Amino acid sequence: MREKTFVLAPDSFKESMTAKEVCIAMEKGLRKIYPSANYIHVPMADGGEGTVQSLVDASGGHLHYKEVTGPLGQKVTAPYGILGDGITAAIEMASASGIHLVTPETKNPLAATTYGTGELIRECLDQGIKRIIIGIGGSATNDGGTGMAEALGAAFLDAEGQRLPRGGGSLDKLARIDLSQLDGRLQQVQLIVACDVTNPLCGPQGASVVFGPQKGATPEMVQQLDANLAHYAEVVKTQLQKDVRDVPGAGAAGGLGAGLLIFTQAVLQKGIEIIIEHTGLKQKLADADVVFTGEGGIDFQTKFGKTPYGVAQAAQAAGKKVIAIAGYIGEGIDTLYTEGIDAVFGIVPGAAPLDKLLTEGPQNVERTCENIARVLRMSEEYTANKATISVKYKESRASTRPSVQKPRF
Amino acid sequence: MREKTFVLAPDSFKESMTAKEVCIAMEKGLRKIYPSANYIHVPMADGGEGTVQSLVDASGGHLHYKEVTGPLGQKVTAPYGILGDGITAAIEMASASGIHLVTPETKNPLAATTYGTGELIRECLDQGIKRIIIGIGGSATNDGGTGMAEALGAAFLDAEGQRLPRGGGSLDKLARIDLSQLDGRLQQVQLIVACDVTNPLCGPQGASVVFGPQKGATPEMVQQLDANLAHYAEVVKTQLQKDVRDVPGAGAAGGLGAGLLIFTQAVLQKGIEIIIEHTGLKQKLADADVVFTGEGGIDFQTKFGKTPYGVAQAAQAAGKKVIAIAGYIGEGIDTLYTEGIDAVFGIVPGAAPLDKLLTEGPQNVERTCENIARVLRMSEEYTANKATISVKYKESRASTRPSVQKPRF
Repeated sequence: MREKTFVLAPDSFKESMTAKEVCIAMEKGLRKIYPSANYIHVPMADGGEGTVQSLVDASGGHLHYKEVTGPLGQKVTAPYGILGDGITAAIEMASASGIHLVTPETKNPLAATTYGTGELIRECLDQGIKRIIIGIGGSATNDGGTGMAEALGAAFLDAEGQRLPRGGGSLDKLARIDLSQLDGRLQQVQLIVACDVTNPLCGPQGASVVFGPQKGATPEMVQQLDANLAHYAEVVKTQLQKDVRDVPGAGAAGGLGAGLLIFTQAVLQKGIEIIIEHTGLKQKLADADVVFTGEGGIDFQTKFGKTPYGVAQAAQAAGKKVIAIAGYIGEGIDTLYTEGIDAVFGIVPGAAPLDKLLTEGPQNVERTCENIARVLRMSEEYTANKATISVKYKESRASTRPSVQKPRF
Repeated sequence: MREKTFVLAPDSFKESMTAKEVCIAMEKGLRKIYPSANYIHVPMADGGEGTVQSLVDASGGHLHYKEVTGPLGQKVTAPYGILGDGITAAIEMASASGIHLVTPETKNPLAATTYGTGELIRECLDQGIKRIIIGIGGSATNDGGTGMAEALGAAFLDAEGQRLPRGGGSLDKLARIDLSQLDGRLQQVQLIVACDVTNPLCGPQGASVVFGPQKGATPEMVQQLDANLAHYAEVVKTQLQKDVRDVPGAGAAGGLGAGLLIFTQAVLQKGIEIIIEHTGLKQKLADADVVFTGEGGIDFQTKFGKTPYGVAQAAQAAGKKVIAIAGYIGEGIDTLYTEGIDAVFGIVPGAAPLDKLLTEGPQNVERTCENIARVLRMSEEYTANKATISVKYKESRASTRPSVQKPRF
């Protein structure tokens, strides 16, 4: 019998394991039952947290670090990845401009800037990168991506020709955008933006109204920021002949979606689709007997572009079975069974404090996968035994009954 | 294809579900994937808590209640079961004389009595019962079963012929045992005692030293109680010509093991063996394709006579596969894989407070069993598909190749 091939394509388990660590623990468990099987590791992500790590791990690339400007002007050390091909980079805007870099006391969506994200992009240009995959979730900012553009050479000027202070709160005074110093290399680099939201830049579904409050915007600030982004879009339209205001995703990450569309060669794409493409998942699925995926939590939201859903959809298209594991199984998983996830198992061994569960993630993944493999094998043995019994039965009938008699199965 | 048969033989999940409720939840989950399978419910126990309920449920019997004397003289309402055959009863000593009937403040192993357990036995005799299965775990007592015997007519007298106060603390004054009023029906009833411990009545491995402290005995009390039980054994030996002192299990339940051996037609047997026998588990296993078992917790101790182990051993002997589920998976489950438990799954969906997990037991059992069934079916489909492909391949070869050519598989 041909050895089985298992494709292991989990997301990270947040605060517990990187996707690569999950792959390793999965294999360790499965290998106890299938010691000679083939194990193909495809550490995944969905464009959110962990995307850089997973793309680096999946491609055999390396993490690098760059000191950049944080959302409130402080210095932060942001990781970014150069993938195995040496010409593709992966960055997460949150590393430079994320909400986790401000505190409940300091968060200020009027002042917060994406400048550091622009610095990360410039660093990639300096490294000779030709393609940048950029995850834009978890921002602290509402500046329409102006900070990012400024770091790449754009200047945002008021009526007197003075540079505006950074942050979305000053954009009401924007009179002119000077692109004369914009980094020319931006025209030679492809930006692939992982963006799962479809919000426009302004209005009731826009960046400020929908995401502003979680960044600390009061109702008054929301109004101000929304009006400022509308004014910004108007200036861009008039001066640069680009109308991004209502492009789906323009409102992502405080309007960074719009900024990338305006100032770079960006395409917005669903995060999980980008990762599936750049990990080569589909090609790797071809040989799979069973696909394992998983994430820290699986519930009704998994369908909205999370990794286990994306993996399941790709596997279903390839006619492959998918087993998912999770640290937390929430409501609504029944809806996943028709979407390509054939079974879901929790890894938690019992009531325990969360910090202990986070620490013991690898052993719980290992134990769960071992036992899933035990059931897979059980069924194979059962089917094999039945086949053997059935053949023997036929033989014994053949030898003891007259050959003209019809079998009576 | 023949429909599958699943034998569902779990223990109760303490503080969450009776064994019968676990069976129902298991079937509910499995039935989603195998709607036409046969489901045989065998609610189990191991002689400990839940034994009466499980034997009643497994046999189609009924629970009854009797007001009896608690360990410290208070009245308690104790359940007991009459099994489906109408002539077998099941009682748990803990219902009448258990440690849960005393508080940390009131517990008093010098005074605690098994009198109520004797009253329960008498009630069974009054009901015309011919066989009593008695679980003796969880006692608050250290009286050598003298209270039990007293409730059935025995009298424990001092040198002046006065009845001793109840409890192990008075046995140093025991001079004579008067059996003239002992209930004659005890000679016609078989007592099957579920006893998993092998402790003798006295000495360093005896009832007082090993189990006294958890019943509230100070080191001084332990010495006193141990000496008293030794004196009691001596009186029994001299007067009744029965030497039970070193019989394995005599020290169970504060010496109730000894008392039952002295005053009744008792046999001590491992709890799980009794339950397996009286639930007819072995006969029911004959048709099983897969056996499901489980318990609130599964760990290295499961091997020491717990239900999942007993079920697994019986199933292994019958050549059947066993899948276990548990609310808590502890250390050392690797040692169970060679003992007949083929796979173990936790039912807990994630970090959550214990009371929530206890309340949501049924839905967690259901979800886990559904997903185990999904993997079982997955493997069947996989194997079935392979068979189909293989047949098709042969057919196409047959039609395109000359018939003389040897197949090159």
